[in-house]
Amino acid sequence: MAETIRHDKTARQLRLLSDALDSGRLGPVKRLVNTLSPAEIGNLLESLPPGKRSVVWGLVDPEDDGEVLVHVGEDVRESLIADMDPDELVAAVEDLDIDDLADLVEDLPDTVIDEVLKSMDRENRERLEQVLSYDEDSAGRLMNPDVVTVRTDTTVDVVLRYLRLRGELPEHTDHLYVISRRHQYLGRIALQSLLTRDASTPINQLIDDEQPAIGVDVSADEVARMFSDHDWISAPVVDDNNVLLGRITIDDVVDIIRYQAEHQALGAAGLDEEEDMFSPVLRATRRRLIWLSINLGTAFLAASVVDQFAATIDQLVALAVLMPIVAGMGGNAGTQVLALMVRGLALGQVSASNVRTLLWKEARVALLNGLALGLVLALIVLVWFRSPGLSLVIAAALTLNLVSAATAGVLVPITLKRLGFDPALASSIFLTTVTDVMGFFTFLGLATLVLLR
Amino acid sequence: MAETIRHDKTARQLRLLSDALDSGRLGPVKRLVNTLSPAEIGNLLESLPPGKRSVVWGLVDPEDDGEVLVHVGEDVRESLIADMDPDELVAAVEDLDIDDLADLVEDLPDTVIDEVLKSMDRENRERLEQVLSYDEDSAGRLMNPDVVTVRTDTTVDVVLRYLRLRGELPEHTDHLYVISRRHQYLGRIALQSLLTRDASTPINQLIDDEQPAIGVDVSADEVARMFSDHDWISAPVVDDNNVLLGRITIDDVVDIIRYQAEHQALGAAGLDEEEDMFSPVLRATRRRLIWLSINLGTAFLAASVVDQFAATIDQLVALAVLMPIVAGMGGNAGTQVLALMVRGLALGQVSASNVRTLLWKEARVALLNGLALGLVLALIVLVWFRSPGLSLVIAAALTLNLVSAATAGVLVPITLKRLGFDPALASSIFLTTVTDVMGFFTFLGLATLVLLR
Repeated sequence: MAETIRHDKTARQLRLLSDALDSGRLGPVKRLVNTLSPAEIGNLLESLPPGKRSVVWGLVDPEDDGEVLVHVGEDVRESLIADMDPDELVAAVEDLDIDDLADLVEDLPDTVIDEVLKSMDRENRERLEQVLSYDEDSAGRLMNPDVVTVRTDTTVDVVLRYLRLRGELPEHTDHLYVISRRHQYLGRIALQSLLTRDASTPINQLIDDEQPAIGVDVSADEVARMFSDHDWISAPVVDDNNVLLGRITIDDVVDIIRYQAEHQALGAAGLDEEEDMFSPVLRATRRRLIWLSINLGTAFLAASVVDQFAATIDQLVALAVLMPIVAGMGGNAGTQVLALMVRGLALGQVSASNVRTLLWKEARVALLNGLALGLVLALIVLVWFRSPGLSLVIAAALTLNLVSAATAGVLVPITLKRLGFDPALASSIFLTTVTDVMGFFTFLGLATLVLLR
Repeated sequence: MAETIRHDKTARQLRLLSDALDSGRLGPVKRLVNTLSPAEIGNLLESLPPGKRSVVWGLVDPEDDGEVLVHVGEDVRESLIADMDPDELVAAVEDLDIDDLADLVEDLPDTVIDEVLKSMDRENRERLEQVLSYDEDSAGRLMNPDVVTVRTDTTVDVVLRYLRLRGELPEHTDHLYVISRRHQYLGRIALQSLLTRDASTPINQLIDDEQPAIGVDVSADEVARMFSDHDWISAPVVDDNNVLLGRITIDDVVDIIRYQAEHQALGAAGLDEEEDMFSPVLRATRRRLIWLSINLGTAFLAASVVDQFAATIDQLVALAVLMPIVAGMGGNAGTQVLALMVRGLALGQVSASNVRTLLWKEARVALLNGLALGLVLALIVLVWFRSPGLSLVIAAALTLNLVSAATAGVLVPITLKRLGFDPALASSIFLTTVTDVMGFFTFLGLATLVLLR
């Protein structure tokens, strides 16, 4: 009888494994590891520090090695490949599907690539070269060339006999593709309809031509959007002449969607989604330094604004105490607008046609929030510093900064996108530069004008 | 012949529609809208401000109304439902699948729910009640009770005849489920194997018992993880006695994964993933005020630290100029650590067994970055303010703050998770509180000790 999953299996298995590893008894570790799927093994390896990672990697069934390499991030993959000798590597990758092999090939040593190519027959070698010729983030790289095709001029009976003769179908086959004599895609036949229709039914009565084909150059992001908007399980891929090249299945699309989410979450902090949690200290330091150096530059920009008002602060030290509040609140409010905009841009919901409406809405929200929070802030400052002028200045500065923050929150990501940059990655640096500079400038500037006459 | 998609269709169609809308000619708008899938129409409606949204909603084919409502966020759904009269609503939702109807039911007016329940037959009404009895984020709410089952004691031939008699199968059926007399799940049969095996083959030779069943109470997050780790297309759901209740298909899992990503991205900015980009100004203001008020509280905490050192700043105004740099850089460095931790926690890769190793690694990375950036910062400050003491103080304060930031970046999310909170949502507020307070305290504290003797 089949197994039943009752609780959160992943977390429990990782805990069991980690206990077994700590106890140093490798027998139970090996048994546990080899009950996992390659993706789960990959997840486990990513959660282990380098020493333990090597030990567990040595215990994985060699048959799974290739699939595990496909399922880990590039950094971790590199560390695993470094642990293998060339023969092991060749054995691990030579039986992979063409699309998986294409993903790995750039991370393999040249000698291993040569060996793998030599071990392939000519047809597969040509297929691999073809897949590698497409852009990395395109439908061409996602597709698997292994498809089952039929012609229009036949019957269910003949197709059933052909399938019995052929034996096993490629994984996740839910449709057969109908092609013309010149191998052009015409439509598809659901396996379901072969099963539920009479054997004498002509195939051309069963063709579903509602399923569009995807051009081989369409971007992976668009492929993911189409699959999720239409609940597709698989879709055919064609070249410029509508010739059928392969098919994309939903399991690869799920990987793209997960990857996009990680790319956004880590990218916003200036990190690469391939980053290994346990990457060597020197490498991690070097990578983060770049991002932090850019931020140091923008911090100096803000500091130089404060420096312009050094004389004012010298006269009224309360300004130094309160100025981070105005700048920081702008950053928080702007981040909210930014989050909505980045989602809207990713979903294709924000464009030139609605930016003005969005800007107007966000400006009004910021104005109202500025007035409400400004009132609270003014009252607290009045009690604290007993200066009505200072209260007035901070409330006005906060309101102005929230409106600038909203404006930057709308305009920064859309401008970056128009300039060809990924708005999810660079927007926050620009936004906080605006909110810091404007926060310090409005607060200290207004204070200079109003309080030091 | 089937259509071919060559370019990024979504964006282009939205642009065309928006142009047609602006021109005010509703005929072309209607034609364009009704070439879209319900999910695409939902996406379009979300991208329109309230006025245009009402116009386009009125043009959607009433047959698609129900599916469109399923595909939009709760805020937008509410605005669409407000535009419909009860009869339209009943007609829109009464033909939905049980799982979709269960999603909608809470947003419908009571009179409409009564009407819909009345229009259903008893079996469907009981099914709906059953689905609604499961937790909102559980396998039970994701499953569709519509499954095709067979018994073990039969042959391919008999099953094929049964399927022909039955006619159409439920959407995305790739397997039939094999059950016992007491309706317990035993395994599954691929449609593929029915097609490729001989008609006389006994069914029990074709059973695949490798596919585990999912317990009805397993969390939606775990369901998503299992589907993506194992490349499943569908999986059976069973109750505590292993009785088959329904099946979950990958298209619903794709929706969960997208939802999780939005939840994380918007949640980190204190927003709800159901937020309408064009929600009314007053409502948006009210919602954001909560988040901003919490941030105002933490900003006052940081300001009160600065206030302790007012006398020091009074003597050396350069401290006010430089203090935001130390605090801000801590925030940036901590955010990087936080992003890695939140991903690790979401993937189940971070647990008690490796926190210490992670903390030690991040502390060393922070120390090295602190020394490197501290050196740069010290040199700039030396040239700017010509004070070796100040240079030394800011470099030391930066290093200390980066190490605190790394510590907070590791410990804050894991502590929140252990306390039962979602680390993706609240971590950043706690983190920036630590980095602001520590940044101001170490810099101004060291300056008081070293420079004002």
